[in-house]
Amino acid sequence: MYNETAYALGTNSCIIRDIAEYGARRAAEIGDENVFNFTIGNPSLPTPPEVTRAIVDILRDTDNLALHSYTPAIGDADCRKAIAADLKARYGGDISAEDLFIGCGASPELAAVFQAVSFPGAEIVALAPYFPEYRPFVEAAGAKFVVVPPDMPTFQICTDAVEAALTPNTAAVIVNSPNNPAGTVYTEQSLVALADLLRRKAAEYGHPIYLVSDDPYRELTYGGVEAVFLPKLYDDTVVCYSYSKSLTLPGERIGYIYVPKACADSKAIYAAICGAARAIGHICAPSLWQKVIARCAHLRPDLSDYDRNRRALYEGLTKAGYEVAKPDGAFYMFVKAPGGNSVAFAEKAKKYDLFIVPGDDFGCPEYFRLCYCGPLEKIQKSLPIFEKLMEE
Amino acid sequence: MYNETAYALGTNSCIIRDIAEYGARRAAEIGDENVFNFTIGNPSLPTPPEVTRAIVDILRDTDNLALHSYTPAIGDADCRKAIAADLKARYGGDISAEDLFIGCGASPELAAVFQAVSFPGAEIVALAPYFPEYRPFVEAAGAKFVVVPPDMPTFQICTDAVEAALTPNTAAVIVNSPNNPAGTVYTEQSLVALADLLRRKAAEYGHPIYLVSDDPYRELTYGGVEAVFLPKLYDDTVVCYSYSKSLTLPGERIGYIYVPKACADSKAIYAAICGAARAIGHICAPSLWQKVIARCAHLRPDLSDYDRNRRALYEGLTKAGYEVAKPDGAFYMFVKAPGGNSVAFAEKAKKYDLFIVPGDDFGCPEYFRLCYCGPLEKIQKSLPIFEKLMEE
Repeated sequence: MYNETAYALGTNSCIIRDIAEYGARRAAEIGDENVFNFTIGNPSLPTPPEVTRAIVDILRDTDNLALHSYTPAIGDADCRKAIAADLKARYGGDISAEDLFIGCGASPELAAVFQAVSFPGAEIVALAPYFPEYRPFVEAAGAKFVVVPPDMPTFQICTDAVEAALTPNTAAVIVNSPNNPAGTVYTEQSLVALADLLRRKAAEYGHPIYLVSDDPYRELTYGGVEAVFLPKLYDDTVVCYSYSKSLTLPGERIGYIYVPKACADSKAIYAAICGAARAIGHICAPSLWQKVIARCAHLRPDLSDYDRNRRALYEGLTKAGYEVAKPDGAFYMFVKAPGGNSVAFAEKAKKYDLFIVPGDDFGCPEYFRLCYCGPLEKIQKSLPIFEKLMEE
Repeated sequence: MYNETAYALGTNSCIIRDIAEYGARRAAEIGDENVFNFTIGNPSLPTPPEVTRAIVDILRDTDNLALHSYTPAIGDADCRKAIAADLKARYGGDISAEDLFIGCGASPELAAVFQAVSFPGAEIVALAPYFPEYRPFVEAAGAKFVVVPPDMPTFQICTDAVEAALTPNTAAVIVNSPNNPAGTVYTEQSLVALADLLRRKAAEYGHPIYLVSDDPYRELTYGGVEAVFLPKLYDDTVVCYSYSKSLTLPGERIGYIYVPKACADSKAIYAAICGAARAIGHICAPSLWQKVIARCAHLRPDLSDYDRNRRALYEGLTKAGYEVAKPDGAFYMFVKAPGGNSVAFAEKAKKYDLFIVPGDDFGCPEYFRLCYCGPLEKIQKSLPIFEKLMEE
């Protein structure tokens, strides 16, 4: 006797992980140099040296007990202050330490926020293409997961489709820009239209519709494009952030939730996030990493390697005739599968030891995702294979 | 509109935290030397120097990307191997890396395990006195929380009371030995009787009743007493462990779940734990700390300071006429409130700036908890106050 939902979720093979693991096995068999693995979203920029220096300094300067002890569940005060100061410097407005909750990365933060905003019968809307784990998080919160297709072929937000999906039970809409898997950065125009729609429908329904902004790629934009900081456009926004990508710390599990003061019921939502986190065993984010962020919240990544990879891959693929979503952010490219079936195309690519992720789990089965945070040389060597696959 | 259960949990004042915070405020007002704060369970043994050395070595020896990257959700293989080797060396038996799931400390591990074993209508039994957070974890798993009183005044397990609480819906029984808050270490005899009962009732109900062993204090025992490693007595055991207490790393969030091969449906339970953890946003335990544990899993704490405190406090309190549960483990003492009302007694103690935790939230309102992991001098200075309170 065990929980069948949890069992299904624990045994349900994740296609991204399956292909990534197959790729790793092939690399072990035939040598890494013969394998082209575009599946893994593990950032490849080195962690900034300031982070490593901060750890060494903290180990030297901080009393051992104070260093590793419990922090308050909402996070160390210095860490929250440093993040608030950084956000304020970048975006202005009234942002302070008490608006922040230090979490263990975007995933558990989203799980807590979905729970916090979910009333009985609640629905939470995701904009395709979307990060597949949203679904189990939303369902674990007892809410219904609703998917809205994007505007094609721009991959921007299709406001009409969002409007069609809204109901009086809509508790929240998830926005992820820069987007995983499409690399799209939503334009200000696109987001203003969404905000206008949500304000209008919230008034009609008589309750707020929250925007949950899943922001781990916020700083990863290219070619002068910038991601809009959503609280500037829409009051009822809750931001979930992670330092996984911006500081290349994905395994360390540190980020924050920001509940703006202007957000409807902000104090109650913040309290409900604390309660939701408590019920899933959140005690505090790792103490050492909170102390590192207190010193490093202002750091920004040097994106030149990702950008070089992005341009090489984009040029190569479009030259070969592929249709690619405009890749302004994150480190993903979303490419239309010749023939329109990304699973079949991924199978074909496997024969050349080229590994890609079909778009089914992201809600766009015609497209496949490429992660371009590997070495440039791999991208260059893979282009003739992509050309061959296109000719087939 | 927000989740009312989560809101209630987020605003529900936690008496331990409230008193601890009041104590901290008083210390700021009148000086720490004038305050006797026995509320906080923050371990005070220094983190072993081997742990700090391991961090420095890892930062020097490990490729920066490999160091901070995602590990598998179940944990880094080297970390799991090191823990399996350590458990095997101590307890024998067939324990291997694939039986382990590296988690972020006992709390989220328990939340995932309760979810994993909960079928529709499930009940989970806690033995009073118990860690108050069991209740929200069990309720978040959709199960009913059932409390069983202890055998008094030994604070051992009252098998008859457990039997009376079991029903065909009982999915699991939680055992926490050494116990928070009582400091009790359950005797082998007591645990054998519990195991016999559960085997008999499981056969009668036609499904396993799991023992969930909440083990963060396993190594913290005194005077030659040892905590029984439950999988040796009862096959259907799932162990939740944390390095918070044994290595003094409470803020860093690292531990493990052990599902023995002999446990009923062990593979399904392990998979359900993976799924339950996934649904609450578990990506992996902090990567750096997994690498530290891979090198330090064999370390044991030097308990002489805790033991000295324990003896001083126990002798002083019993001499003053207090009735104290036999304190063989953890770093807590559970003391009967003169008059039998621990809330009223805690209020009286406050007047002397002596802070203690009433037992209501632990399921034993006649007792209060003292945490003796502070400095010995504080304990010595507090004894005259305890004597005065007894005389009143």
